[in-house]
Amino acid sequence: MFDKSFSKIAIIGAGNVATHLGLALLKAGQPLHCIYNRGEEKGRELSSLLGIQYINDLTLLDQYDLIILAISDDAIEPIANLLKGHSALVVHTSGTIPLSTLAVIGTNIGVFYPLQTFSKQHAVDFSNIPICVYSTDENYYQQLYSLAGKLTNSVHVINDDQRRKIHIAAVLVNNFSNYLYTRAFDFLTENHLPVELLKPLIVETALKVNNIPPFEAQTGPAKRGDMETITKHLELIRNDNELSELYKMITRRILSIYQPGITIKS
Amino acid sequence: MFDKSFSKIAIIGAGNVATHLGLALLKAGQPLHCIYNRGEEKGRELSSLLGIQYINDLTLLDQYDLIILAISDDAIEPIANLLKGHSALVVHTSGTIPLSTLAVIGTNIGVFYPLQTFSKQHAVDFSNIPICVYSTDENYYQQLYSLAGKLTNSVHVINDDQRRKIHIAAVLVNNFSNYLYTRAFDFLTENHLPVELLKPLIVETALKVNNIPPFEAQTGPAKRGDMETITKHLELIRNDNELSELYKMITRRILSIYQPGITIKS
Repeated sequence: MFDKSFSKIAIIGAGNVATHLGLALLKAGQPLHCIYNRGEEKGRELSSLLGIQYINDLTLLDQYDLIILAISDDAIEPIANLLKGHSALVVHTSGTIPLSTLAVIGTNIGVFYPLQTFSKQHAVDFSNIPICVYSTDENYYQQLYSLAGKLTNSVHVINDDQRRKIHIAAVLVNNFSNYLYTRAFDFLTENHLPVELLKPLIVETALKVNNIPPFEAQTGPAKRGDMETITKHLELIRNDNELSELYKMITRRILSIYQPGITIKS
Repeated sequence: MFDKSFSKIAIIGAGNVATHLGLALLKAGQPLHCIYNRGEEKGRELSSLLGIQYINDLTLLDQYDLIILAISDDAIEPIANLLKGHSALVVHTSGTIPLSTLAVIGTNIGVFYPLQTFSKQHAVDFSNIPICVYSTDENYYQQLYSLAGKLTNSVHVINDDQRRKIHIAAVLVNNFSNYLYTRAFDFLTENHLPVELLKPLIVETALKVNNIPPFEAQTGPAKRGDMETITKHLELIRNDNELSELYKMITRRILSIYQPGITIKS
């Protein structure tokens, strides 16, 4: 009989993913025993937060059967080289790095990608965070699937190509939306208006996706083809080339979906 | 002594703003007595939801001292003409229409603009929704300020020009973010991947603005200047001109803020 659970888990890294994943593993009663991190101060800080051991010597991981690389994309290949021939299953948590980057270690490799944005300042509830797991080895894949299922209700088997596509979508809704927030905050600040005004709207706009597909939730002047408002807006921001260009591009896109035939001059 | 509270309030309109504002007024114990709406079915539906009278005859509003126009921008001028010379304070709830559009009524006019996106399917807690009030008449302005303060902790005195600028910022964070959600959902669907994957990320990205300024919360390949990931993403979406153009524009903007000197080819 094949035992699906891990007996000794280590996390390499001490950033936001390491922190939140570490907390979630311990909360789920999983045998997370240590944090390895090159930077000692951050490593010790996280270890003490989690109440587990800090190590800075990879040879101490000999008895471990799962090593989770919660590190930046750039650091994955160098660490994989240091873990060459290791017997543990080694997984990374990246949205973009292919599984093959770990192949130097052996076939005992996989991906454990939690699709969420983590920040030190904000606790997250892991139970609905999608975790994308992958391994080309059937046994390892089952172990990862089972582990992910202890942390969340949303486990997905996602290969390299699919994961990269999901990452593109994540860039749109996370990085690009956040850029829009920055731009809107800047615009209000430049006009001596309080950014606080926008916060409830930002949150409510996002929460709507839980109830209504965004295609149906679309509102605003472009959706309505309200050229009077669009023209007034463009007049008000005409001295800000960047903002005007952004406004025009996305307005054109929304018009093309909901009001085909109506367009704005460039 | 000047009594700041209203004795009889009517809402004109039966859409999302009328619904949520009506519910909030009643919850705050305000004397909302009737709904006027041209379309009888929708008007009666909302009246019965609120447990107040439905009318379709504006002359029945003679005894009212506050009339709230919770109607589309296009409908404000025609309704204002019908209310010419009315003695009630008449306010609209629009982000774009200037106060002067109501001037045909008299000087008893104002703006009562709740800065939020409302949908039938989703209850909202009014207590933190910003309400922007405005009137050129000191007494009316005080009455509106006081009324708004009964619905929310976030009352702002905002003139026409400021309100239009706030509306532009709202378009960025609401309409444009929602467009990004649509685009991301479409991209996943085209690639046979579940859109559910993105929902927790969308919500968490938005919630972050309550704790961290978006400028500081920015993450992702463009923020890091990770040209390898950006190039791979552009390869994967190269057959989708619209998506590529959007990806490049916003990536360039984020690069220019966080990685000045790094750029991507057009």
